[in-house]
Amino acid sequence: MATSIRMTGRPALRQFVRHYSAPLDSSIPASKLKYVPTSGTYPKGFLVSGTHVGVKPANKSHPDLALIASERPAFGAAVFTTNKFQAAPVQVSRSVLEKRGGAGLRSIIVNSGCANAVTGQGGVDDAWAMSSTASAQFQQSSQPDDHLGPNSLVMSTGVIGQRLPIAKILNKIPVAYSNLAADHAAWLTTARAICTTDTFPKLLSTTFTLPGAQHAGIEYRLAGMTKGAGMIHPNMATLLGILCTDAPISADAVSTLLTTAVNKSFNCISIDGDTSTNDTVALLANGAASPSASTAPISSSTTPEDYAAMANILTSFAQQLSQLVVRDGEGATKFVTIRVRNALTETDARAIASTIARSPLVKTALYGKDANWGRILCAIGYTSPALLASGAESVIPARTNVSFVPAENSASRAEGVLKLLIDGEPQAVDEERASRLLEDEDLIVDVDLRVGQAEGTYWTCDFSHEYVTINGDYRT
Amino acid sequence: MATSIRMTGRPALRQFVRHYSAPLDSSIPASKLKYVPTSGTYPKGFLVSGTHVGVKPANKSHPDLALIASERPAFGAAVFTTNKFQAAPVQVSRSVLEKRGGAGLRSIIVNSGCANAVTGQGGVDDAWAMSSTASAQFQQSSQPDDHLGPNSLVMSTGVIGQRLPIAKILNKIPVAYSNLAADHAAWLTTARAICTTDTFPKLLSTTFTLPGAQHAGIEYRLAGMTKGAGMIHPNMATLLGILCTDAPISADAVSTLLTTAVNKSFNCISIDGDTSTNDTVALLANGAASPSASTAPISSSTTPEDYAAMANILTSFAQQLSQLVVRDGEGATKFVTIRVRNALTETDARAIASTIARSPLVKTALYGKDANWGRILCAIGYTSPALLASGAESVIPARTNVSFVPAENSASRAEGVLKLLIDGEPQAVDEERASRLLEDEDLIVDVDLRVGQAEGTYWTCDFSHEYVTINGDYRT
Repeated sequence: MATSIRMTGRPALRQFVRHYSAPLDSSIPASKLKYVPTSGTYPKGFLVSGTHVGVKPANKSHPDLALIASERPAFGAAVFTTNKFQAAPVQVSRSVLEKRGGAGLRSIIVNSGCANAVTGQGGVDDAWAMSSTASAQFQQSSQPDDHLGPNSLVMSTGVIGQRLPIAKILNKIPVAYSNLAADHAAWLTTARAICTTDTFPKLLSTTFTLPGAQHAGIEYRLAGMTKGAGMIHPNMATLLGILCTDAPISADAVSTLLTTAVNKSFNCISIDGDTSTNDTVALLANGAASPSASTAPISSSTTPEDYAAMANILTSFAQQLSQLVVRDGEGATKFVTIRVRNALTETDARAIASTIARSPLVKTALYGKDANWGRILCAIGYTSPALLASGAESVIPARTNVSFVPAENSASRAEGVLKLLIDGEPQAVDEERASRLLEDEDLIVDVDLRVGQAEGTYWTCDFSHEYVTINGDYRT
Repeated sequence: MATSIRMTGRPALRQFVRHYSAPLDSSIPASKLKYVPTSGTYPKGFLVSGTHVGVKPANKSHPDLALIASERPAFGAAVFTTNKFQAAPVQVSRSVLEKRGGAGLRSIIVNSGCANAVTGQGGVDDAWAMSSTASAQFQQSSQPDDHLGPNSLVMSTGVIGQRLPIAKILNKIPVAYSNLAADHAAWLTTARAICTTDTFPKLLSTTFTLPGAQHAGIEYRLAGMTKGAGMIHPNMATLLGILCTDAPISADAVSTLLTTAVNKSFNCISIDGDTSTNDTVALLANGAASPSASTAPISSSTTPEDYAAMANILTSFAQQLSQLVVRDGEGATKFVTIRVRNALTETDARAIASTIARSPLVKTALYGKDANWGRILCAIGYTSPALLASGAESVIPARTNVSFVPAENSASRAEGVLKLLIDGEPQAVDEERASRLLEDEDLIVDVDLRVGQAEGTYWTCDFSHEYVTINGDYRT
């Protein structure tokens, strides 16, 4: 049934069949293929699988159950949604981490197709059952029970308010376990299994070294997958992220490193308090590439240099990973970096960048390829005082500068910066040049406040007709 | 040039002609005609006119200069945008009111087609010139100079960053003065002259009485006009409101009554800090219907009963007026009342109502006629902690109730309330009933938090394809 018909009339034969999340076919748009890796370098001691369950009855073949496992007990941490309505898997994963102090983790079990959110005690029981059943696979095979309860984190993504088809899922967990593998194909299938309305699987991997003498000559590895595809300030469209490394990191450091990285990456495509019921980003570190069992794990107190290096590596990697979510924003045609510089505080810079990134008027102007600096300025000006640290001093109109900067590798890169507003004064804009710049898929909006030295960057996309179509038509 | 072509390709013959705001033809959509009055009861001693200037070169005939005048000096007050970038007319109107302590006002001069915002000192000079030229008309005719400077408030609305064609405007102010009239046609033309992308003029009038003995038998009158048409949380689309009454009100009371009324009306289709550079709502009270010159003006201290009555009348009237802005939201197909009840504080209730009203996912679901309570719940849950007064106590998931309530006079009114969530538990929703309810143009989203007794209401509309079209294509 054509959307335009459904929207404007009341069709006589409307059928009340709900189509939940998760892609119904596996075709990836040609424009997104460049973001899907064809090979990778994956961390040692991690095995993954993507298995078909059919959480959505309409899904007859696509993988919708992901298992990410470590061959040895790993340290782990997770950053969870701040939404007041916390989904059952969030409650359970938080509890698993607390009970074991972030130690002895063996896996993360993820289903797409149903978020298991706002599902009451039954939903919590279901999430525990997923965690326990996944944990049991490893207990049977290799790990003696440490009496700290299940060692598997749980994530779910999809429509909220629906119970999981829990028997189907539990029955397939042994299959997921037997499907575990370490090759690129397995990682890609797993990344696909966590997707909902995403148009492509989001998977990255990298290698890195650490400066400490004990790490000399060791190549560590880091891999991650994510899913999003909803709004770029994700709210109901759940944001999930899973990072795995074979570097040896202490339990405390896993937690602080993840928080540091997420604050400069996943939280810069979102804001505190503006998250879905299910958002979760987790990090597992199993130390499988350690030179020896006696290698001291990375820690901020005992190996500060390695810790700082690891923080940079993880932050940069998480930024690249989270940017893939923006690349796949629902209906997005542009990737826009909002860079606010020379603010009094980082809080101010982030609040202003976030306000610009959220403005529907800015986002529709970008979609319309309109160099409408007025809307950007307006958004700067209405940034909520409740979010600013510096009150009236945070923005001084007569010092405010706004420019469009061509992104690296963009077609109009050679033309340089296009200044729209200098010290509060609008500039005569060469509309032909602006037009060329706005034809580029990537664009940087640079805001120079000239009141301090702090900086904040957000990544966002535009607001298109397709966004309205997708979100006016998601559930029914 | 078709929008779809302009959006998706780079037309060879693109012409860099800007089309600014203000309607290019005067046809009113059939569905909006019911909101345009065919007669009215207008306050005594007020004269109005709408005159063609051609602020936008493309505007060859439609009125774009409004003059609202009082035959005698009036008390006045205005509520201005909190945006950090305050347009020149806002700065000038604020200064006019301060210099004269809200007394001795004779007129409000308004142009559409150009906002005179972010235009530097030249723009401020232009706004003063408009105020002075309007004031001079009355000085010549009747009023001796009180040496308090110009007595005309100034408003502008349109694209920002462009200077006014000031000579054209000043030359037409004497024409606007000579066009002044008191009949319904004049009020309607004036209401039309302040419009930009509005699809219909927004004009209301009413009569009222006051309880005090000195007002016995007197019928007072109140008229108002407004314009909006942008986002319902208006940001760049300027919100202007002009209220006129012939009741006798003290200068102080004019100010506090207006603030009270705006907080429960125009500020409930917007939020503090989320406003355009030009937003202004003004009230003039000329006392022309006073029984005698010795009648004590309404004041909170000396006539508290009359003051309270006036506050109720003005608030209710301002609510009706501001709701017309929502009715004309760009691309809007629905009028949605977001009612949050039984909150701990009014601050909480308003913050939550505002967050729901702003959620693109909620608004696209309403457009898609989708009873998606999950998105409403999610928005409740991510209301920014910075905006809530009661922290973690503000929302308790297990007490939260969400219902759809048919609006008065709606087709599905007889079917009663549709409960979606009771005490945090999703209800089995009769989708056919939900579908009927969502076919109605008007809908109430009722959120019962069950944690306190405070209430807050916002009015909003849905988010449609047409919104994207209008805002992707507004300036160029």
